[in-house]
Amino acid sequence: MQQLIIGIAGGSGSGKTTFAENLRNHFPDDALILNCDNYYKKRGNMSFEERQKINYDAPDSLDIELLLAHVKGLMGQSEIECPVYDFSRHKRSEKTVTISPKPIIIIDGILIFHYPELLKLIDIKIFVDVDSDVRLLRRLLRDVKERGRNLNDISRQYLETVKPMYDKYVEPTKAFADIIIKDARDTKMLGSVLSFISEKRGI
Amino acid sequence: MQQLIIGIAGGSGSGKTTFAENLRNHFPDDALILNCDNYYKKRGNMSFEERQKINYDAPDSLDIELLLAHVKGLMGQSEIECPVYDFSRHKRSEKTVTISPKPIIIIDGILIFHYPELLKLIDIKIFVDVDSDVRLLRRLLRDVKERGRNLNDISRQYLETVKPMYDKYVEPTKAFADIIIKDARDTKMLGSVLSFISEKRGI
Repeated sequence: MQQLIIGIAGGSGSGKTTFAENLRNHFPDDALILNCDNYYKKRGNMSFEERQKINYDAPDSLDIELLLAHVKGLMGQSEIECPVYDFSRHKRSEKTVTISPKPIIIIDGILIFHYPELLKLIDIKIFVDVDSDVRLLRRLLRDVKERGRNLNDISRQYLETVKPMYDKYVEPTKAFADIIIKDARDTKMLGSVLSFISEKRGI
Repeated sequence: MQQLIIGIAGGSGSGKTTFAENLRNHFPDDALILNCDNYYKKRGNMSFEERQKINYDAPDSLDIELLLAHVKGLMGQSEIECPVYDFSRHKRSEKTVTISPKPIIIIDGILIFHYPELLKLIDIKIFVDVDSDVRLLRRLLRDVKERGRNLNDISRQYLETVKPMYDKYVEPTKAFADIIIKDARDTKMLGSVLSFISEKRGI
């Protein structure tokens, strides 16, 4: 089985996950998604208050060892037990999801091009590059509507961690991208990525 | 009386007005501010519903003829009757404010570098260049808290008019600036602008 690893990076609210899902839907039997949101560190030994204070936008918030082990496991045709992160409790839940290897592995995460060892494994690097104001607006509407958070908290978190971490760690990884897409919902963008994939797969 | 005209442009939420006021406070007897928000067109012949639909971020929303006449009037040592805009009714109010000429005229407005005739009159052109996400956040907190507007309306207006008009008309005028400042609250920035003004005034 010829394998292809596709990485989709970009800021919070850029539409990475939408794009990853649209891509997967083009290969319903052949593709799987690993969403890095599930690979935040375990944090079982910390209190809820301590966990609330963690900077989840910094690279060391991710359990990169586990993510790497799982990517390599899937590459070696092994099943993995993907963790399930519980955002309401800011910790890894007890559940896992069994994922079987497939020819196309899509990795979706803000910082996936930041870790050199992971970067080396990714065959096609896609960066979703959406203006910071549009990303903020999407994040904000989501946090208010779906998570019931208030504007002052969102604003403070955005200015204190999301924005500086994006500028420091995410934006610089755009340089590693093979393809930069400006609109994750644009079907022409998806089309050109699909052509790129076909070429890489030699189809 | 040697006169100096200072223009302060930049997007909504950039901190132009704060900067204009800090600047004026350094010349309490010698400086006046003309805020372009007061120079929106009269719109007396339109209904409230029609006025609500106006794109206030487009260049033709401003009564540039009146603004030019007032700037030239102040330059010719005449008093002017500055209009007062009523944002709740989207129209010019019946009130005016008498402004007497002063040696330093500060013009504060998003689009002031867009109009060639006005641009020619401005001796020192300052552009407040703040990231779009930070500007959006300030605008949003102001609109929710001070104007009681809801997130969906703010979001729609931002994406439909504020952002595209900024990209089309405001951002390109940055090229005309003598000084670009990144943070309107930074006192070092104010200091360097003050030095520039002293030099221009030959003090």
